[in-house]
Amino acid sequence: MKPKIQDVAKVAGVSPTTVSRVLNNRGYISEEMKKKVYVAMEQINYIPNDLARSLYNKKTYIIGLIVPTTKNPFFGELTAEVENYCSQQGYKALICNSLNNINKEKQYWEMLRRNQVDGVIVGTYNRGILDYDQHNLPTVAIDHYLSKNIPVVGSNNYKGGQLAVETLLAGGCKRIIHLNGPFDLKTPANLRRKAYEDVMIKHGLPYTTYEISGVFDQYEQVRIINQMFDEQPDLEGVFASDDLLALAVIREAEKRGVSIPEQLKIIGYDGTETIRTIFPGLSTICQPIKKIAESAVILLQQQMEGPKPMSHDEMSHDITLHTGNTI
Amino acid sequence: MKPKIQDVAKVAGVSPTTVSRVLNNRGYISEEMKKKVYVAMEQINYIPNDLARSLYNKKTYIIGLIVPTTKNPFFGELTAEVENYCSQQGYKALICNSLNNINKEKQYWEMLRRNQVDGVIVGTYNRGILDYDQHNLPTVAIDHYLSKNIPVVGSNNYKGGQLAVETLLAGGCKRIIHLNGPFDLKTPANLRRKAYEDVMIKHGLPYTTYEISGVFDQYEQVRIINQMFDEQPDLEGVFASDDLLALAVIREAEKRGVSIPEQLKIIGYDGTETIRTIFPGLSTICQPIKKIAESAVILLQQQMEGPKPMSHDEMSHDITLHTGNTI
Repeated sequence: MKPKIQDVAKVAGVSPTTVSRVLNNRGYISEEMKKKVYVAMEQINYIPNDLARSLYNKKTYIIGLIVPTTKNPFFGELTAEVENYCSQQGYKALICNSLNNINKEKQYWEMLRRNQVDGVIVGTYNRGILDYDQHNLPTVAIDHYLSKNIPVVGSNNYKGGQLAVETLLAGGCKRIIHLNGPFDLKTPANLRRKAYEDVMIKHGLPYTTYEISGVFDQYEQVRIINQMFDEQPDLEGVFASDDLLALAVIREAEKRGVSIPEQLKIIGYDGTETIRTIFPGLSTICQPIKKIAESAVILLQQQMEGPKPMSHDEMSHDITLHTGNTI
Repeated sequence: MKPKIQDVAKVAGVSPTTVSRVLNNRGYISEEMKKKVYVAMEQINYIPNDLARSLYNKKTYIIGLIVPTTKNPFFGELTAEVENYCSQQGYKALICNSLNNINKEKQYWEMLRRNQVDGVIVGTYNRGILDYDQHNLPTVAIDHYLSKNIPVVGSNNYKGGQLAVETLLAGGCKRIIHLNGPFDLKTPANLRRKAYEDVMIKHGLPYTTYEISGVFDQYEQVRIINQMFDEQPDLEGVFASDDLLALAVIREAEKRGVSIPEQLKIIGYDGTETIRTIFPGLSTICQPIKKIAESAVILLQQQMEGPKPMSHDEMSHDITLHTGNTI
């Protein structure tokens, strides 16, 4: 038999109501009394039922985290950082891998509401529009505009794009191509492309962005990269909007006998721990993933503990350059 | 105001008890009646409270998943596969990154029990011993012996070790070194080392295993790899017990001007999607991560729905060779 609150009360020599007040932190209870109750709990191996307490307090201390997939190095790292910080703050994270499928995202969203999570952090890239304004659940988006009332956390995408292109220019490239994800996603990451175009215009240079419309679609990546090589015989530099894309460019360049950095210079984006460890030679713009994760949790906590924000907050962390040997 | 069960009942023209019976799937209710209730729920945007239902049914449909960190490509992929399969089965996953810290693991374990999860999947590598036998919570371990009553899921580590060493031998290597993680962990992954030694003995060849005692400790990895290069001037082949370790050997070999595969042949272990995508040239033994994840969930479901297993089940999936250009 599982020990009950009544058993704790008997061992501690107090009333069941007192035990319940200690567990729920309600009313004034002396430190001595608290200690008595905790010692008794330990003694008979009583496990408090947080589920019952959640229902009573209308607070579960659970947040939902929706990402495309933790397989992807960026989202694997983001998930670890969000969960670590949540755990320090006394929150738990329900993980949801939406696989960029709008129906899966809808199902997760409903599941999270049914389970009374205190809030949701969304880091997906979906085209479909969920009616995020319809609900009152505290929500924070990472690198994505969901609705005008939902704060967005990310890093300075415009500055990151500028730094990437300027680094290629400083390396002597003039014919620079940009590779980016789907143009129609509502994400501040599109500012990387805007920055690329602005810098090229400023230097009086032509610019072309190749779009890879399938998110995480390796076959399309390879197809578009080869199209780029075929159409751009005078190519000198590539700014890829994520590191996996930059590494795919390196692989295709190698197959074509194009030497890096002599004939072609490449810079990526993201700079996850995994990629920087296994491919330290890749020059890339590093996003401060830990800071992004922590800010997302902090902004969510503010909503969970206060009123829903009326304006569209945006928090943009600074990026850094990791210099490898691809430029 | 949030709509209540009473509001659904009014709109559907049934009693609140009927709505409650539909939601909890209790007693006989006609399909027509169910439809009426669901249409009414939709109409007034009623969100059922799964938390209250969990408390009533003593089943939360939440499982805990404890991994070292989702930053690591193997555990990022394992987490995605476990959660995907759970979601198909109507379960949700609370993610816990223990960072190989025994105190963190203890705290997670207690948190999961307090939150009445239905079961736990443990994929950590801890030295400390939690008293896993003390509780009755359904548990499945991945690649780790936790206690005699907890089933272990993984892949055929002995066969994987054999295949790795035989592939190096077939490539013409005689002086083969094995790099492995901490020897004192109670994991079936130690069988990779046993297989290496057995195959070397069978061929009348000397064998040496270098131990990297810090799990995921990059600095120690680099130190031990360099010690290996210094102590083994006639080195011809390296069998690394995971891919990140194999890639670290490649980096250090390059720094020393050792050409791969001409002067040194290397084979890794794990074969995650991420590593196979960004480093398709690495020869490695692939674990079927999706199958491992699904079996872990299935074995857990059996425990959650039936009695706790009395014997120590072990489920070992088959491995495959990915041939790159490092051998």
